[in-house]
Amino acid sequence: MSKYDVLCIGNAIVDIIARCDEKFLTDHGIIKGAMNLIDAERAELLYSHMGPAIEASGGSAGNTAAGIASFGGRAAYFGKVSNDHLGHIYTHDIRAQGVAFDTKPLQGHPPTARSMIFVTPDGERSMNTYLGACVELGPEDVEAEKASNSSVVYFEGYLWDPPLAKEAIRMTAHQAHRAGNEVAMTLSDPFCVDRYRSEFLELMKSGTVDIVFANESELISLYQTSSFDEALKLIAQDCKLAAITRSEKGSVVVRGEERAVVDAIEIEELVDTTGAGDLYAAGFLHGYTQGHGLADCGKLGSLAAGLVIQQIGPRPRQSLSQEAQQRGLLKAA
Amino acid sequence: MSKYDVLCIGNAIVDIIARCDEKFLTDHGIIKGAMNLIDAERAELLYSHMGPAIEASGGSAGNTAAGIASFGGRAAYFGKVSNDHLGHIYTHDIRAQGVAFDTKPLQGHPPTARSMIFVTPDGERSMNTYLGACVELGPEDVEAEKASNSSVVYFEGYLWDPPLAKEAIRMTAHQAHRAGNEVAMTLSDPFCVDRYRSEFLELMKSGTVDIVFANESELISLYQTSSFDEALKLIAQDCKLAAITRSEKGSVVVRGEERAVVDAIEIEELVDTTGAGDLYAAGFLHGYTQGHGLADCGKLGSLAAGLVIQQIGPRPRQSLSQEAQQRGLLKAA
Repeated sequence: MSKYDVLCIGNAIVDIIARCDEKFLTDHGIIKGAMNLIDAERAELLYSHMGPAIEASGGSAGNTAAGIASFGGRAAYFGKVSNDHLGHIYTHDIRAQGVAFDTKPLQGHPPTARSMIFVTPDGERSMNTYLGACVELGPEDVEAEKASNSSVVYFEGYLWDPPLAKEAIRMTAHQAHRAGNEVAMTLSDPFCVDRYRSEFLELMKSGTVDIVFANESELISLYQTSSFDEALKLIAQDCKLAAITRSEKGSVVVRGEERAVVDAIEIEELVDTTGAGDLYAAGFLHGYTQGHGLADCGKLGSLAAGLVIQQIGPRPRQSLSQEAQQRGLLKAA
Repeated sequence: MSKYDVLCIGNAIVDIIARCDEKFLTDHGIIKGAMNLIDAERAELLYSHMGPAIEASGGSAGNTAAGIASFGGRAAYFGKVSNDHLGHIYTHDIRAQGVAFDTKPLQGHPPTARSMIFVTPDGERSMNTYLGACVELGPEDVEAEKASNSSVVYFEGYLWDPPLAKEAIRMTAHQAHRAGNEVAMTLSDPFCVDRYRSEFLELMKSGTVDIVFANESELISLYQTSSFDEALKLIAQDCKLAAITRSEKGSVVVRGEERAVVDAIEIEELVDTTGAGDLYAAGFLHGYTQGHGLADCGKLGSLAAGLVIQQIGPRPRQSLSQEAQQRGLLKAA
């Protein structure tokens, strides 16, 4: 048995979250619903125009790791912070959730990454990410013991933005496969897919990646087709397993000829979509590494995603294991 | 007309907020519902045992200033942060809310104050405050232009904890009274009242303070009586105006022989009581400085307090002016 259920690898980012109106986005040239990469100067500028905010640890794969731990899974994380106050907060939060996190922090500049997240009245989040210390994540940060001792290694497509992380990913994937384990990725964002389409497809077709998470617009972007069904057929050919989220329409899971269609959970009030995809992946991978069937994996994903979008911030404050037990999706430990 | 409606003075603190169970409080010797003062070493220890948290700007009088600005009032603030990341966050958030905040930050050690706030399942918050840079707030931080140009100067009793702030308060109160304006304070916390009872009573009886905010347990602590009615009579003699909050029982406002009893607003879900008293004061003082009657001032206080306890964090994320207009408590500007 592996020591960890899931090793997550991603950009370690502290979220700075505020509400704004639609006009703010257009006035500041922020692409709605997307992850906008920004430099230090633009970060200063946007922050000076941002309303009162709250801070919470985030980062796509970090949120997934926290979600898996909250479900009771054994999660580990690779991600680069700096040795500054935001880095301490990040490290505290992910460890306090029970995630094994030992990536050496950068000493000094650049500072810990932050993403200014603007939440519009419709609950949609638009992210503005300054990568900071994340640009230093590289092959030397691959801890072999975790890379080869995790049932699934999961990473975010966002890691193609910093210069060195893709080398770390390839190294980790190699170690995982050599140990007989699987590798999963999320396509992260439709614009990210647009930046790295051919590389992402190569990762899948070469078998570097076994399992793919994506939402509908990322999938559509990947195959540059307007047909969801067509794209679904293609991804079923290109990887072993894919889980495609469709917001309030739930998700579709494909494995070869097999299909599972899963409903979203009912939402009382949509507050902030930040973390929805990350938490879907957390629920799915928790079920998957516990040996559940595809539909049940999808239901755990729907549950976690549905809970996180009813609060501000990217990581649910409930115990996901309790929530899943109450709904009969997991047995009491 | 004064340039500002209310000048608030307080300990400038960033809140670090996490949920915990009752056992955590007893295991760690934290007095429930109180503000526990801690040193840097205990702050490290508690943080290492704290669950995943979120960060939000707080500080009692800072929350009040933010609330007044959210109502559309003209608020100013004196409070000491350090020139560090938490200090930048604090400064950003209060200014982004529209509060005039120009206190010079401390250069270097000690760092910006933080309070670890543990929220139990009943919604009650227990605070653990490391005062950090707040200990440096002193008379040199009194900006004469604001001190003498604010209809009300409002400060927190907590300012008796750091060594130099009380001198700043006496100086500001003097300037306010010389300009024909009023001075208000909150008793802050029953243990704080216990530490400074005679000084607080002297502030009231000498006329240094005109208006007092307190909750029931602070009032009871002040007069060391078990009778609420008795305590109410005493405070009506000792200051010009007092507003006493009583949680779900609403509040009682006394001015000489005059009494106004105000209901609390209906709550869907009590999430986190942090900021309840601060936001009551914000609503009350906004109404007061706009010339509303006592009962209407209390209703504005009830509204702001009732909204903030239905979310995590000490400052409401709604526009209080919109909320008050929707309920007919304020007219559209």
